[in-house]
Amino acid sequence: MVIGVRVPATTANLGPAFDVVGLALTLYNDVELEPAEATAVVVTGEGQGTLPPTAANLVARAAESVAQAVGAPRHFAIRCRNRIPLGRGLGSSAAAIIGGAVAANAALGGPLPTDALLDLAWKMEGHPDNVAAALLGGAVLVDISQGSVAWTRLLPRWEAEIVVVVPEFGVSTEEARAALPAAVPLRDAVGNLARVARLVAAMATGQTELLRDAFEDALHQPYRRPLVPGMDAVIRAARGAGAYGAALSGSGPTIMAVAPASRGEQVGRAMVEAFATAGKTAVAKVLQVDESGATVAVA
Amino acid sequence: MVIGVRVPATTANLGPAFDVVGLALTLYNDVELEPAEATAVVVTGEGQGTLPPTAANLVARAAESVAQAVGAPRHFAIRCRNRIPLGRGLGSSAAAIIGGAVAANAALGGPLPTDALLDLAWKMEGHPDNVAAALLGGAVLVDISQGSVAWTRLLPRWEAEIVVVVPEFGVSTEEARAALPAAVPLRDAVGNLARVARLVAAMATGQTELLRDAFEDALHQPYRRPLVPGMDAVIRAARGAGAYGAALSGSGPTIMAVAPASRGEQVGRAMVEAFATAGKTAVAKVLQVDESGATVAVA
Repeated sequence: MVIGVRVPATTANLGPAFDVVGLALTLYNDVELEPAEATAVVVTGEGQGTLPPTAANLVARAAESVAQAVGAPRHFAIRCRNRIPLGRGLGSSAAAIIGGAVAANAALGGPLPTDALLDLAWKMEGHPDNVAAALLGGAVLVDISQGSVAWTRLLPRWEAEIVVVVPEFGVSTEEARAALPAAVPLRDAVGNLARVARLVAAMATGQTELLRDAFEDALHQPYRRPLVPGMDAVIRAARGAGAYGAALSGSGPTIMAVAPASRGEQVGRAMVEAFATAGKTAVAKVLQVDESGATVAVA
Repeated sequence: MVIGVRVPATTANLGPAFDVVGLALTLYNDVELEPAEATAVVVTGEGQGTLPPTAANLVARAAESVAQAVGAPRHFAIRCRNRIPLGRGLGSSAAAIIGGAVAANAALGGPLPTDALLDLAWKMEGHPDNVAAALLGGAVLVDISQGSVAWTRLLPRWEAEIVVVVPEFGVSTEEARAALPAAVPLRDAVGNLARVARLVAAMATGQTELLRDAFEDALHQPYRRPLVPGMDAVIRAARGAGAYGAALSGSGPTIMAVAPASRGEQVGRAMVEAFATAGKTAVAKVLQVDESGATVAVA
C-alpha cells in the first residue's frame, strides 16, 4: 500500500506576528511512502541532487520518528516531488516533516492523533508556526508559552492574494535566529501587540482596511535586514503597487505580500523589480491561502 | 441648553494586550454641562468632596480644551454624577476626559469629529486604550505606533459577564508605569503576541474556548505584582470559580475576570474572598460590555 500526502508551503510571522502565526499556501510538495526493508528517499524537483537519499533525509526522519513513537517497524521507501524552494522561508523543512510524519502515520493505520503529530513535528522543527499551518491549513495561531502547543485555526475571510517573491539567495534559519536580541524595548513589543491584534481582527472579520500598516514589525525584521538585501525597498514596492502590506516570509529571504484579489501579478512584478535594483534576481508566485493542510490519498 | 453625557467605565489590557485593548463596561458616569460665565464643577458620588470644583477638574479641563481647539468661549457649568471609582483601574480619568470633551463638543454644535476628539483625549490621558473604549464602546484595539491613534472597534461575540473586583486601596497610574522596565525578554513579548492573537480571535468569533490561558501576561503584571497584594491569588480564585480568565484592570488594583454568562456572581465572591485572605477588603460588580460608548442627550 502506497500512501500519498500533499503538503502545503507556509509563510510565518506576517510581520508583527513573530513566531505565532503560520499561513498555508497553495504551493505543494508531494510525498509517496510505503513500508520497506530499508529506508531510501528519491527526490525530484526542488532539492533534487542535494537532499540526502537516505534515512538522514528530513522526510524519512519524521516518518521514522512516528514509527518509533508507536513501536512500529521503522523503514520506508519514500518518493518526494518537491515544489517548495529550500531555505527560502516558505516552510520547506516544515513540509518535509509534516509530509513524512503524516504519511507514516497513515501507513501505520493512523495511530497518532493530530495533537500528537503536531507535538512531534514542532519539536523536530524547533518552532511550531510553519508545521502547524502545513498540517492544519488556513491560518494557525500558535502558542507554546504553556509548554505544549495551543493552536487556533482561522480561515482568513479577507478577499486577497498572497504574493511570494523568492530571491536566488538563501538565508539559514539558524543565522536568522542568531541575529535576534535576547531583549527588546517594551515599546517595540507593544507596537507589535497592537498590529497583531489588528491583523487577527482582519483575518477573523475580512475587513481588509484593517491591514493598512498591520504588517509593520519591530521585533525581528529590523535585526534581519542585513541578511536580506533590498528588504525595505521590496516591502515598499509591494505597498506602492497596491498590496495591503508585505513582510519577511518566516526568516526570509522570501518576501510575502497580501494584495487585493487580482492585484497580485502587478504587486509581484514591482517586488521583483525592487529586488533587481538591489542586485538580486527573484521570482514571484501569486498564491492563495490553502485551507486543507496536509491531505492523504491511498493509492 | 444643558447637554447630558453618559460615559462608561473601561478596563484595559485584559492581561496580554498591554496598552492596546480597551473594553467599555456597563458602569457609568453622568456629566451635565452648559456654557457659563466661569467654570465651576459640582461632583456627587465617587470623588465627592475630593475632586476639585474648579477649572482644575479633569472634566472641565477636557471641556475647555475642546472649546479652545475650536476657538469657542471656554467656560462651563458642569455637574458630575460619578459611579466609577477613582484610581482603581476602571478608567475614571478617561471617563472624565471623554465626558467633558463630548459634552463640550455637543454644546458647541459638534465641531470636532470622532478622530479629533480621540486625539485630544488620548493626549490628555497619555495612553489611548481607556479613552478610545469610553468614547466608542465595545472593545477597541488601539495602535499609536504610527504617531496618531489607529483604532478598530469590535463587539465581542462571546457570551460572557465581566466581573470587576475593586479593592479599597488605590494604585497611581504613574507609580504603575514607573514599575515597568524599558526592555523585556523577547520570549516574553512573543508569549504575549500569541495570547493577544487568541484573545482577539475569541472576541471576533465568539469562541470562548480560545480564552483558556489567553489572559496570561508577561509584560506588565509581573512588574506590578508588588503594588497589588493578592493579585495572583485573586486571579487563581477567579479561574477556580469558573472564569475563562482574569487580569489586572488597567494598572490595577482592580482585577477583572471574564466569566461564562450567569457565573459572574460566583466568580466575584471567590475573588473577594481571595482579596480578604490577602488582608484587603474588596467589592465585586458583575457587568456587561457597554456597546455604545459615550452617549449624548440634550435636556
